[in-house]
Amino acid sequence: MIKESFETIRMEDGKLILLDQRKLPGEVTYITAETVEDVYFAIKDMAVRGAPLIGSTAAYGTYFAARESHGKEEFEAKCNYLISARPTAVNLEWAVKRVMSIALSSSFNLERIAEEAERIRKEDIEANHMLSHYGSSLLKKDSNVLTHCNAGALATSGWGTALGVIKQAFLDGKIRHVYADETRPRLQGARLTSFELVDFRIPATLIPDSAAATLIRDGKIDAIIVGADRIASNGDTANKIGTFALSVMAKAYSVPLYIAAPTSTIDLSTPNGAEIPIEERSKYEVIDPLDCGMLIAPKDIEVYNPSFDVTPAENITAIITEKGIISKPFRDNIEELMGKVNS
Amino acid sequence: MIKESFETIRMEDGKLILLDQRKLPGEVTYITAETVEDVYFAIKDMAVRGAPLIGSTAAYGTYFAARESHGKEEFEAKCNYLISARPTAVNLEWAVKRVMSIALSSSFNLERIAEEAERIRKEDIEANHMLSHYGSSLLKKDSNVLTHCNAGALATSGWGTALGVIKQAFLDGKIRHVYADETRPRLQGARLTSFELVDFRIPATLIPDSAAATLIRDGKIDAIIVGADRIASNGDTANKIGTFALSVMAKAYSVPLYIAAPTSTIDLSTPNGAEIPIEERSKYEVIDPLDCGMLIAPKDIEVYNPSFDVTPAENITAIITEKGIISKPFRDNIEELMGKVNS
Repeated sequence: MIKESFETIRMEDGKLILLDQRKLPGEVTYITAETVEDVYFAIKDMAVRGAPLIGSTAAYGTYFAARESHGKEEFEAKCNYLISARPTAVNLEWAVKRVMSIALSSSFNLERIAEEAERIRKEDIEANHMLSHYGSSLLKKDSNVLTHCNAGALATSGWGTALGVIKQAFLDGKIRHVYADETRPRLQGARLTSFELVDFRIPATLIPDSAAATLIRDGKIDAIIVGADRIASNGDTANKIGTFALSVMAKAYSVPLYIAAPTSTIDLSTPNGAEIPIEERSKYEVIDPLDCGMLIAPKDIEVYNPSFDVTPAENITAIITEKGIISKPFRDNIEELMGKVNS
Repeated sequence: MIKESFETIRMEDGKLILLDQRKLPGEVTYITAETVEDVYFAIKDMAVRGAPLIGSTAAYGTYFAARESHGKEEFEAKCNYLISARPTAVNLEWAVKRVMSIALSSSFNLERIAEEAERIRKEDIEANHMLSHYGSSLLKKDSNVLTHCNAGALATSGWGTALGVIKQAFLDGKIRHVYADETRPRLQGARLTSFELVDFRIPATLIPDSAAATLIRDGKIDAIIVGADRIASNGDTANKIGTFALSVMAKAYSVPLYIAAPTSTIDLSTPNGAEIPIEERSKYEVIDPLDCGMLIAPKDIEVYNPSFDVTPAENITAIITEKGIISKPFRDNIEELMGKVNS
């Protein structure tokens, strides 16, 4: 099997080694995290990003919380602090709570806690491969696919979700060409997805987000595949800002839109998209795009910078998970599948 | 009347003084053009941009062509060279041909040729004010409006088209708030429209292009107003890349979309949008967004960078011109109005 030439996350001598994604594609550098605070800022400042990778990183952060804490109260406070790093991706809370429950049920057995964090990381990679096979089965030979943001190896513990599907489909001989939206403002499509596509030698073209519409209308896209930050129990899906507009185009021009995500991204406690908290980030992500002080707009201009938007279930063709493909009606089928996951 | 604190174009001692828009908003600097070649590169390299301003600039370029040429053949070759600077905005060809006809009918009377170029510049400003009053009449009090790219004073000889409408409506007490798409890849919304809005003290918010969709869906936009680079005789309109996607959102969520442009942007010889040539520009506009060598993507990634897209007439509510508002059916009403313009 072809492997990526980089690793996003690994533990070494009790320290977490994280690929610093803010430096890509120019530099492949790693940062070290060994406290809850290190992990909090790695997530908040987006050295690591992508819902599944945020989950895996936070799982180790929860282990650090157990290692640092003197008692349950301090541990829980540190866990809540971790969860507060970013509000939209539910994988963060999911992973912290999963490791917390092992901590509490094992009387803070650090070895068992570290094992649970490691299990989450390994399960993530495995889930990505499984959902990628399911996703590939949906694509026809010679498909031209479009993706938005980065839902690849860099967004996960390894391999990827939406880009994992694309990579698997490429290995299965089904991909003619991939179009990658650059994904303003953080440019994850340009910086990260392009990097992965070049690394994997998949024929690909980078486009400004605004160029996707014409490609969709002109029949140049056979399928759109994106990741997710939170899937509500009715199928409404929060994902990177720009996904919703793509979904409206997809619906208007009858192009299938697939969400690819592990079941850890499904949040049964969120009934619909209106209930998903949408993170708003700094204006400087927009007006200082290279984070170097070269502003592209007057300093005084007000900026609205939501990181995510909500794609309504009706605009989604299917949800691809490691447990199988969820088709409509989403509410019933999500409940049924999650019942199996949790049983 | 409130005036802008800058001028985009003026003649001085036989030289053309042009605001270098590539340096905005950081620096307000001017370049001098005194040959056809100077004008060609000012347009091609986008020191000046915006369909009406390209027209005015090319009108003076045609005067330079007459001043430089030794005979009709050389003159016509230089005019064709000028027209080739950019393919989509029809105002370029329109202005060159208008000045050419004076040159040819006046036996190259340089004074009359210069007067015609100056007339085009002045008519442009006047047309902008006229269409802005018509446009303002379409808006309700307390409107929240969205615009894309820059169709302001900086896109014209003065005042502006779409942003002219917004400024006039602001003076008429009808504007609550303006949202400006940043407009990747050249960022004219961030660099230029924000600059004008701050200069004019209109309450405004800059957004990544991808954030417009949610605002439209959530009822936060009462009208979308954009300029045009070429309007076909059936109403199909080429404008900055991203306009088409906005038009699909506008239609899906019943928000009116207005095109504001002088009649010089209407091209009766182009029957529909499929016949409008769409300029594709360098990949470096996308991957080197600050034009400083700091690349946001791997150098080897392929890039598709169309400067414009075509909004179908069916997605357009009305076309605002200096001769009045064109409503549907566009083909009949455009023919009727252009008959008056040309008679």
